[in-house]
Amino acid sequence: MSAFLDALRERLGEAGLLVGGDLVAYENDWRKRYVGRALAVARPASTDEVAAVMRLCHEHRVAVVPQGGNTGLVGGSTPDDSGRQLVLSLSRMKRVRGIDVANASLTAEAGCVLAEVQAAAAGAGMLFPLSLAAEGSCTLGGNLATNAGGTQVLRYGNARELCLGLEVVTAAGEIWHGLSGLRKDNTGYDLRDLFIGSEGTLGVITAATMKLYPQPKDRLTALAACASLDDAVALLGLARERAGDALTGFEVMSRASLTLVARELPQLAQPLGAAEWTVLLELSDAESAEHARGVLEGLLEAAIERGCVQDAAIAQNLQQAKAFWHLRESIPLAQAQAGLNIKHDISLPVSAIPGFVAEMDAVLAAYLNGIEVINFGHLGDGNLHYNVQAPTGANPAEFLATHETAINERVYDAVQKRGGSISAEHGIGRLKREELSRRKDPTALALMRSIKRALDPLDLLNPGRVL
Amino acid sequence: MSAFLDALRERLGEAGLLVGGDLVAYENDWRKRYVGRALAVARPASTDEVAAVMRLCHEHRVAVVPQGGNTGLVGGSTPDDSGRQLVLSLSRMKRVRGIDVANASLTAEAGCVLAEVQAAAAGAGMLFPLSLAAEGSCTLGGNLATNAGGTQVLRYGNARELCLGLEVVTAAGEIWHGLSGLRKDNTGYDLRDLFIGSEGTLGVITAATMKLYPQPKDRLTALAACASLDDAVALLGLARERAGDALTGFEVMSRASLTLVARELPQLAQPLGAAEWTVLLELSDAESAEHARGVLEGLLEAAIERGCVQDAAIAQNLQQAKAFWHLRESIPLAQAQAGLNIKHDISLPVSAIPGFVAEMDAVLAAYLNGIEVINFGHLGDGNLHYNVQAPTGANPAEFLATHETAINERVYDAVQKRGGSISAEHGIGRLKREELSRRKDPTALALMRSIKRALDPLDLLNPGRVL
Repeated sequence: MSAFLDALRERLGEAGLLVGGDLVAYENDWRKRYVGRALAVARPASTDEVAAVMRLCHEHRVAVVPQGGNTGLVGGSTPDDSGRQLVLSLSRMKRVRGIDVANASLTAEAGCVLAEVQAAAAGAGMLFPLSLAAEGSCTLGGNLATNAGGTQVLRYGNARELCLGLEVVTAAGEIWHGLSGLRKDNTGYDLRDLFIGSEGTLGVITAATMKLYPQPKDRLTALAACASLDDAVALLGLARERAGDALTGFEVMSRASLTLVARELPQLAQPLGAAEWTVLLELSDAESAEHARGVLEGLLEAAIERGCVQDAAIAQNLQQAKAFWHLRESIPLAQAQAGLNIKHDISLPVSAIPGFVAEMDAVLAAYLNGIEVINFGHLGDGNLHYNVQAPTGANPAEFLATHETAINERVYDAVQKRGGSISAEHGIGRLKREELSRRKDPTALALMRSIKRALDPLDLLNPGRVL
Repeated sequence: MSAFLDALRERLGEAGLLVGGDLVAYENDWRKRYVGRALAVARPASTDEVAAVMRLCHEHRVAVVPQGGNTGLVGGSTPDDSGRQLVLSLSRMKRVRGIDVANASLTAEAGCVLAEVQAAAAGAGMLFPLSLAAEGSCTLGGNLATNAGGTQVLRYGNARELCLGLEVVTAAGEIWHGLSGLRKDNTGYDLRDLFIGSEGTLGVITAATMKLYPQPKDRLTALAACASLDDAVALLGLARERAGDALTGFEVMSRASLTLVARELPQLAQPLGAAEWTVLLELSDAESAEHARGVLEGLLEAAIERGCVQDAAIAQNLQQAKAFWHLRESIPLAQAQAGLNIKHDISLPVSAIPGFVAEMDAVLAAYLNGIEVINFGHLGDGNLHYNVQAPTGANPAEFLATHETAINERVYDAVQKRGGSISAEHGIGRLKREELSRRKDPTALALMRSIKRALDPLDLLNPGRVL
């Protein structure tokens, strides 16, 4: 290994290679579920340097763990505890290479922090719509490697739908120059989407060209109280019909979620009190603030008349809109304060969600007295964070140790029965790898394995993740 | 071969296998550029039958040419002239399997004609936005295999962006059950997008789940006269800014295109006369007809004030709107009447289009006196049909034989220099296979070849197409 590390140091310079010392920020995931030990951390500053790292790894048969902001939730971006895996951090590749306003596109390197990409677009008078809780530290490369979702998927799609082209370094250290500002390109297989969401197991994304959008003239946010999930689904249909593409957010929060927030974060205002289901709606209007307000008020009046909304509050200013979103985004924080919990990042056809939740709530209540379901998420995308907490007073760690497997089994069975997904936006990593191998269509698994063998025959790229 | 055909007949029945007789509709492409001879035509009626066909082909090493409506432009869906390739027609798989209005999705079999899928969605009060000239005969499976584009890409994307899930039969005759109504699913590699656009070389698509959208309340179409392509690009930016996602069409037609239409199809009205560039705009409004008209009139007034539009006409009723679109769609027909021509289906960053056209027009004028460029297309997507016709009086066939290679070389060089694509929406097939191998990034080609070997090691699926 020392010949390998010497060669790396020679190619990358002292700033480009960390060996020994405190590498814990690179070795552990932030939830501290995965504690690893790295051979070293390579920090290349250019695509050519990434390619050089991969060629050396190929030559010396060293496994590589690509890493962006290391904010993932499934153990996909940290090394195992063997001390033999090289962390390949893209954190020094932070350049926005260009913005083309007439083409509505932006090209940036993988290590750019998402919030910086958003800011660069805003600086050119445009919108880069990808937005998620970790945006202050997650990176564009990581967003693409994991096909990140977030709060604007309903209108703008996942990271995948926002990407026009990629630059990728292969397992053998070749560079694919696939950056492109094209909306249409039917010249062969869709390599771009194959690398997106492959969690660093097929290649290393070094840069991307992303779509930009016009900034909306105004954004309006509202909270609406619904008596049931059926009513929330009806409200979604009504909102789509009346607001069309102006509907950019449709989040849902259960009564238990907001009760937990009230307990753990009592300083946060809850304008609608304890509704059975609280929907957060966001409209982005291309025309004007007045127009946005007219559409939103008309929608909410129609929903109240139809009986699918009982009460509603429209944010009166930007600060209040932020407070509404903050309420939604504080649920995971409240959960973290309350202790360990079992997270499920599932998706279902929207039409199947009320039935799933009714069945599952009953199954879990019967399984264990006092169990707490903290259910919230992106209803417009069919994506729920259906999380499960220990009964009040129980020890969370013991609860997880005893019940996680059995609860996962029940939740995933019900999801699978309805054609849903066991990982809507967080990916597979190490956390759900075995679950995937048990539950994914066998033909799909076989196809995935043959693609992995074809593109990474030595199994050097993020081995033991996904497959 | 007779054992193979006997086994096929036994599995598919008499209706499922055509041998001998008049197979010309399956053997030749509609432009008559490719004249082939098939071993036979298999017409399976179910996914299980498709899988059985593939298993027999695998066992007997028979190459397969999947075929939908056979409306492609690049020779991708007809057999070669060896008489040894089996045409696998999906035309009997025509069932719409289901529509889920609350989830805004539809599941249909590959052989469904596009217009029938549109009608099924409309019957459920929804919009299936994929739309192209061949929609009366092309099929959903073919649309996906070729990642079809068409007139609504600006807002709704290509066939790829409209697809949520697939059912696919592999080269070895396994079935991947990947139909899904999910908006988010991060469980492994993106097989869906790998099959989409692979032109039948990686697997046979047998069914798909597609996105639906709310029907707009009104659609308004306008023609606008621009003095230059720069003005047309400025109008596009203004339209995006003011109309946002309501902008669903932005087509451009050069003066020469409309002059040709006036000559060949004099019965068609041309409301704006002979503008240098005529833009066709379409707005789809979620609110009301009045609102649509207000936005469109405001946009055109602002454009005239800013000087990027000289004259404009808004369609006063549905019939007139259809006439505007018909004018745009009649350009290829006028070209066909005028005789053979050299078609280029190219895309560029929108910002690069005016420079490309100026350079190319000058290069071709210098290359051959009197040469006619018929330039039109989906400017909003950066996609031009930059077609070239013989000088008036010249023999079109001789013109093609003498000049096609040299003209393609010049056009594709200029496209490549600007990061464009030599096939925006028509695909590669046989027509552009060699061009692709010369011009595509070598790493991308190597990746494509290893994927092909991994998924179709015996090279049975549409051999000689794409790669």
